[in-house]
Amino acid sequence: MTQSRKTKVGIIGGGPSGLLLSQLLDLKGIDNVVLEKHSRDYVLGRIRAGVLEHGFAALMREAQCGERMDREGEIHEGFFIAHDGVKDRVDLHKHTGGNSVMVYGQTELTRDLYEARDKMGGEVIHEALDVTPHDLTSDAPWLTYRLGDDQYRIDCDYIVGADGFHGVSRKSIPKEVLTEYEKVYPFGWLGVLSRTKPVSPELIYAKTERGFALCSLRSQVLSRYYIQVPLTDRVEDWSDEAFWAELKARLPQDVAEALITGPSIEKSIAPLRSFVAEPMRYGNLFLAGDAAHIVPPTGARGLNSAASDIYYLYHALMDHYLKGDDAGLESYSEKALARVWKAQRFSWWMTSMLHSFPENSTYDRRLQQTELEYLMSSEAAMTSLAENYVGLPF
Amino acid sequence: MTQSRKTKVGIIGGGPSGLLLSQLLDLKGIDNVVLEKHSRDYVLGRIRAGVLEHGFAALMREAQCGERMDREGEIHEGFFIAHDGVKDRVDLHKHTGGNSVMVYGQTELTRDLYEARDKMGGEVIHEALDVTPHDLTSDAPWLTYRLGDDQYRIDCDYIVGADGFHGVSRKSIPKEVLTEYEKVYPFGWLGVLSRTKPVSPELIYAKTERGFALCSLRSQVLSRYYIQVPLTDRVEDWSDEAFWAELKARLPQDVAEALITGPSIEKSIAPLRSFVAEPMRYGNLFLAGDAAHIVPPTGARGLNSAASDIYYLYHALMDHYLKGDDAGLESYSEKALARVWKAQRFSWWMTSMLHSFPENSTYDRRLQQTELEYLMSSEAAMTSLAENYVGLPF
Repeated sequence: MTQSRKTKVGIIGGGPSGLLLSQLLDLKGIDNVVLEKHSRDYVLGRIRAGVLEHGFAALMREAQCGERMDREGEIHEGFFIAHDGVKDRVDLHKHTGGNSVMVYGQTELTRDLYEARDKMGGEVIHEALDVTPHDLTSDAPWLTYRLGDDQYRIDCDYIVGADGFHGVSRKSIPKEVLTEYEKVYPFGWLGVLSRTKPVSPELIYAKTERGFALCSLRSQVLSRYYIQVPLTDRVEDWSDEAFWAELKARLPQDVAEALITGPSIEKSIAPLRSFVAEPMRYGNLFLAGDAAHIVPPTGARGLNSAASDIYYLYHALMDHYLKGDDAGLESYSEKALARVWKAQRFSWWMTSMLHSFPENSTYDRRLQQTELEYLMSSEAAMTSLAENYVGLPF
Repeated sequence: MTQSRKTKVGIIGGGPSGLLLSQLLDLKGIDNVVLEKHSRDYVLGRIRAGVLEHGFAALMREAQCGERMDREGEIHEGFFIAHDGVKDRVDLHKHTGGNSVMVYGQTELTRDLYEARDKMGGEVIHEALDVTPHDLTSDAPWLTYRLGDDQYRIDCDYIVGADGFHGVSRKSIPKEVLTEYEKVYPFGWLGVLSRTKPVSPELIYAKTERGFALCSLRSQVLSRYYIQVPLTDRVEDWSDEAFWAELKARLPQDVAEALITGPSIEKSIAPLRSFVAEPMRYGNLFLAGDAAHIVPPTGARGLNSAASDIYYLYHALMDHYLKGDDAGLESYSEKALARVWKAQRFSWWMTSMLHSFPENSTYDRRLQQTELEYLMSSEAAMTSLAENYVGLPF
């Protein structure tokens, strides 16, 4: 027997996007339910992004989830680009009229959102299996899922698909309706998390002939380092020693000498991919975040692009439920995609400028080097980088 | 019998670069001779660029050749980018703090330089055949050439190679010394010159799905229009009628309707190419302009990049002869190339943003469209375009 109930907004996916939307809507009295196929521990075990743009941090505060973020997160007013043995600073604060980014791990942020949802009695159903959306083009879409052997049904006004690239939401849209755009890069990032003091208080993006490297961090005791590797490499090929040696070889000498190494507490290879699915609305299903678009991690746009979708969806749903105004829902796909594509452009540009592309001609390599030299010589180019890095206006 | 003589600077090539340098040096009392393999009429018959950056115009004035340019040339404080049926203006004046470009045909400019050289008794030897530089790595390089059956020799301190892409200068540098960088584009520009009133007082760069188009001009009665065509097209394939029809199809409706057509007085197809040879100095031979680098015409960097080389060479040679300071000559190649590569970058970027690339993926096409949308939405991106278009600082 299927147990049935109703809600206004059914949210598929209990990652940061789904939880943030759930919390924001609940605070406005808009009833919603989150379905997450994994356990809470699994979700909180994922090591992900850590650089939040200003508008995202503001949304966390609006969701009343910003307290710990503001206490423990670090405001970064700049970052470094290392190249040709030197380290040039990108002054975000100066080039954006006082803007900055917040370094706060996605894991911590997700934990804060769970706690807030718990406190408000928000419904986040974990280990919801076989989640399936139905009748998306009707006025009465519904969701089914299974908990163990028990079948459930939720009738909704709207369904939000925030269930990631591999989730069921995008796959529920008929192929003939959806256009998919994709770009695959011929390399991945090998990432190591270590309980060591970060080598630099601000991120260092390094371009070298050996390939790209990134010195990032989650906190003052938790470092996150990455190196560009061929797609054919496997994690097992890389001992901690080999990783640290290669990382050092890609950093300016003073940085390499200051690097504190330690055992990796997580080590993984992620391929780099650009992906967009259009439209982001199908009937009463609205896609958000990775369910609709993926960026390579260079430039930290992934989580921030998801937050931008949530911003538009939150305002659109508020307008619908509180003002009876559907303009925001009608224009959601177009508005969200306009910003999504700008984040795609920026991520592609940062990736192209900083990585080694073995297939590039010598002309293209000089062009890439010139891109960096022009950037370092031009206020306008720096301002363009900075405004994209802190997040373009919603 | 060979007739022999001496000069300080032997200049190969009597195009605008060579003439401008000759005039500038002569005004400082630095003896020089220009060797040009073609007749003056031939040189003046070439239809070339027409957009001069601010620094170039200033150099023409310093050469005392700016009078007619300032009288007849047009100051352009902006241009248009047409796309998706609309025309957006790039306000150069606003985005560069008051800078602009000068529209004045290369033919007119060359004529002014010839007249100035004649007036000062400058030596420009036309129809100099078999020009050959010798002993370039010695302290006493020399040039030989032939006029009819008579052989000549000029002993020089320095030789400047301003004889274009196909000239002898670059070819005189040993292959193992030179590195050449090249990028070929899968299309060309079909250009038409017509004695008609230009459709727009300011240039219009048009991006359409049919391909790129440009509405340019040489004066208020002389129009220059271009359309992107496949490299396989030949001029004979394009009647005037077919050209005008295709041009109109690539312009916003109001522009197309206002277009005044007429018989073409020149019609040609030029392939698009990016090329740089390094270094730009070999012994006492200094390369300048097309002899060392070529850009696609999008963004009007070709002649301006040559002028930038002349600026550096002129100052370097002045420092040598008037102050005994060789630092400028020593750093010429490096300094010139730094600016050359930035012009290469800009020309590539403008070309990439505005042309159709049949081989591009659907993702890359959306990225290209987003580049334009971001440009139109961002002060910083507009400023970057504008500062490159009016010319980066020397």
